[in-house]
Amino acid sequence: MSPPVKIIGHFASTYTYRVEAALRLKGVPYELIEEDLSNKSELLLANNPVHKKVPVLLHGDRAICESLVIVQYVDETFDGPPLLPADPYDRAMARFWADFIDSKLLKPFWLAHWTEGDGQKAQVEEAKQNLALLEVHLNGKRFFGGDTVGYVDLAACVLGPWLSAVEEVTGVVVLDENEYPALRRWSKEYNSYVALKQCAPDRDQLVAFYTEKKEMYKMFANALLQQ
Amino acid sequence: MSPPVKIIGHFASTYTYRVEAALRLKGVPYELIEEDLSNKSELLLANNPVHKKVPVLLHGDRAICESLVIVQYVDETFDGPPLLPADPYDRAMARFWADFIDSKLLKPFWLAHWTEGDGQKAQVEEAKQNLALLEVHLNGKRFFGGDTVGYVDLAACVLGPWLSAVEEVTGVVVLDENEYPALRRWSKEYNSYVALKQCAPDRDQLVAFYTEKKEMYKMFANALLQQ
Repeated sequence: MSPPVKIIGHFASTYTYRVEAALRLKGVPYELIEEDLSNKSELLLANNPVHKKVPVLLHGDRAICESLVIVQYVDETFDGPPLLPADPYDRAMARFWADFIDSKLLKPFWLAHWTEGDGQKAQVEEAKQNLALLEVHLNGKRFFGGDTVGYVDLAACVLGPWLSAVEEVTGVVVLDENEYPALRRWSKEYNSYVALKQCAPDRDQLVAFYTEKKEMYKMFANALLQQ
Repeated sequence: MSPPVKIIGHFASTYTYRVEAALRLKGVPYELIEEDLSNKSELLLANNPVHKKVPVLLHGDRAICESLVIVQYVDETFDGPPLLPADPYDRAMARFWADFIDSKLLKPFWLAHWTEGDGQKAQVEEAKQNLALLEVHLNGKRFFGGDTVGYVDLAACVLGPWLSAVEEVTGVVVLDENEYPALRRWSKEYNSYVALKQCAPDRDQLVAFYTEKKEMYKMFANALLQQ
């Protein structure tokens, strides 16, 4: 029998969600330990001393950090539907695109929503260029993983359960329906994917969270552009 | 029989070297296609349209990009000694530390060698903090992979075959012997590792390359700090 599985995480963290979703898809029960990000716990700091970030997966006495590393650990540790494909080339492509999302897309996509003025224009442009690459990669497939949600779909979750809340609070739409029909269609299908309904963040709670943080996020994002 | 294996790469690229070393460890013959980085080839642009960077692994009609993705592909595709450990937790740790090297260590380590003044001090400090974490992680082991060179050792190659050439040309030593005895010992053992002798870059060629590029690298590095 597997030792107990716990996640140190935060409800508004897309990185935490990736881990929750991976466990849900595998059918692994887990306990979510909600972290106070403004006052980090000893439990978090002891188990992720390098990055001091959520999520951390606790599996018995093992602690695993970094969301994509955790998702691969979950895939290799638990039975259930595979999250990465079986063929080594397809696995390499999945790793390539998940890394692309993390290293190229997320930062400009986020800054595009929370900044203003000329700085914002450059971020929107960069985000759109990278979304266009992702749009081409998805085209013709139901999910990045094929007929079912897989590794790259989890990596792209900010375009799923988070999208409409972020768009509503910021008033910015980067993932334009006319420019990215495949990604918009993907987003809707992802959000109605039954196996993941139970771990989707509550939309009202997300909107309330981002509304409360709005000024702080904008100040932080605009300051980042000045660096 | 496996289709032919080719690498589009560059002799001074540590990322290219990771792929060469992975193939050498597996005993897979390959052809290295040297890329002119100042005038990128159609072959490179066609096979890595997203990042437009070396290395690219060509395996028959498959093209795989991003060095750590390629090393995992090599590990999953070819027989020979495993590059990642077998246990899922050990695999997760290997992925964690390889990602740590790429996302936290390489940039400040590089900038610490090529910049000057107050900006350099901050980079040296950041590089040293991250080296200290790696030193603790290595301590007691011959290689990161245990008794043999593995995935994390390949990721850390800038501290191996590149180190003395970069130190000589820049006149800067960040990986101080007294502060990081385990990493310095690792560096020496790595450089004398018989299975990788044949793909180690020629030290004189590296020194000549960095000497020629020195002013450009310094200008570029100092400009990066101003951003």
